[in-house]
Amino acid sequence: MVRYKAIISYDGSGFVGFQRQNQGRTVQEEVEKTLTRLNSGQPVAVHGAGRTDSGVHAYGQVIHFDLPQERDVEKLRFGLDTQCPDDIDVVEVEQVSDDFHARYQKHHKTYEFLVDIGRPKNPMMRHYATHYPYPVSLSLMAEAVKALVGTHDFTGFTAAGTSVENKVRTISHASVVLDEQRQFLVFTFTGNGFLYKQVRNMVGTLLKIGNGRMPVKQIELILSSKNRQLAGPTAGPNGLYLKEIIYED
Amino acid sequence: MVRYKAIISYDGSGFVGFQRQNQGRTVQEEVEKTLTRLNSGQPVAVHGAGRTDSGVHAYGQVIHFDLPQERDVEKLRFGLDTQCPDDIDVVEVEQVSDDFHARYQKHHKTYEFLVDIGRPKNPMMRHYATHYPYPVSLSLMAEAVKALVGTHDFTGFTAAGTSVENKVRTISHASVVLDEQRQFLVFTFTGNGFLYKQVRNMVGTLLKIGNGRMPVKQIELILSSKNRQLAGPTAGPNGLYLKEIIYED
Repeated sequence: MVRYKAIISYDGSGFVGFQRQNQGRTVQEEVEKTLTRLNSGQPVAVHGAGRTDSGVHAYGQVIHFDLPQERDVEKLRFGLDTQCPDDIDVVEVEQVSDDFHARYQKHHKTYEFLVDIGRPKNPMMRHYATHYPYPVSLSLMAEAVKALVGTHDFTGFTAAGTSVENKVRTISHASVVLDEQRQFLVFTFTGNGFLYKQVRNMVGTLLKIGNGRMPVKQIELILSSKNRQLAGPTAGPNGLYLKEIIYED
Repeated sequence: MVRYKAIISYDGSGFVGFQRQNQGRTVQEEVEKTLTRLNSGQPVAVHGAGRTDSGVHAYGQVIHFDLPQERDVEKLRFGLDTQCPDDIDVVEVEQVSDDFHARYQKHHKTYEFLVDIGRPKNPMMRHYATHYPYPVSLSLMAEAVKALVGTHDFTGFTAAGTSVENKVRTISHASVVLDEQRQFLVFTFTGNGFLYKQVRNMVGTLLKIGNGRMPVKQIELILSSKNRQLAGPTAGPNGLYLKEIIYED
């Protein structure tokens, strides 16, 4: 068998998430169906680096899969891209060694979260950014976001009842900037792993701080107390993008 | 009866067009249904300034309608906005005189057309810009677009078999610029009226000129010959936006 790594992008609004489930349309299943067709009907399993939730988008999701023969990677990319549904694009395909694993090989993920602060509301963006029509201070959020950088126990920013035991993760980059042209707040986080709903909880908390309803110091308090109750609400999935994954070699 | 004028925006991808039809979901019908609910079940007719086609978007469509009583316009806007489906937003409502008519009162419309020339293809934009993955010269298109400005018979740029007799229209502004950040070509046209598919045919022709497969002078030739066969293909509806309507008083 030959292993392939692919970078795919998708519009999450038509999916119940990346990972195959009993009910609903998933990215994994759609790509598997397409690969199976390209593989003369023999089933192909797809492994993804991140399990994006329902409504969450990706520009740089990484998957791997095995095919019985060596293929021209550009032809394979083109075939997959054109045969996948039009809300999934295949950006790049490369052959990798048999021990590459999209999920378990060490990597850094970058997530972006778009908040539309423009008025009036833009119906074209309703699936692609979270609309926040309240006043926000960019400088308060830019100050607060710094406290997320580093190695911390992120229990206070994850959904209650997650099965993962070790909740220590390292964030190497965290920022928020204003895209003036589009009137978007752009939050960016890079790290060696993120807990379930961690990014959306961090953004929900940062917006509350920006809106003046929580102090800047709240981030440190949530980290040290590991108390989810102290964090802000979970921001919507529609603003979240899995932007890029960089593997260590 | 009291007449109201409203500015609405909508995501055209879920509609077969603005205008009510026998089959399919339309903007007009959705707004009429919502207004009828707000009017204690008494039917309300909506008149729109422009009949956008299936898949065409609007930031500044103008409609008018009559209600039996005077209302607070901000409350009316809010009620309409929140009760309309989420792919329609109501930007502004104002009371106008009984003789205002969204369609027949003289006005200038501005259309914008977005062409996504970025790579890789962006699945998030597939309904909101037309992807054009071929090389294009901005300067050739910027030169060619100038010939569209002025009063011309636009027969060569409309769909064959339109019932409108007088095909003379005036374009007061026509331009194309590159939005570097988003890697979009942004075409903008302002005029006192546009024929059926005129903007999409102009854009399809300009792209062909930009791609070097038609001479810059082709625009003048299409205008003078009134021959649709000489124009380029009709660009997709997904890039087209009814941006703004300004009424003469």
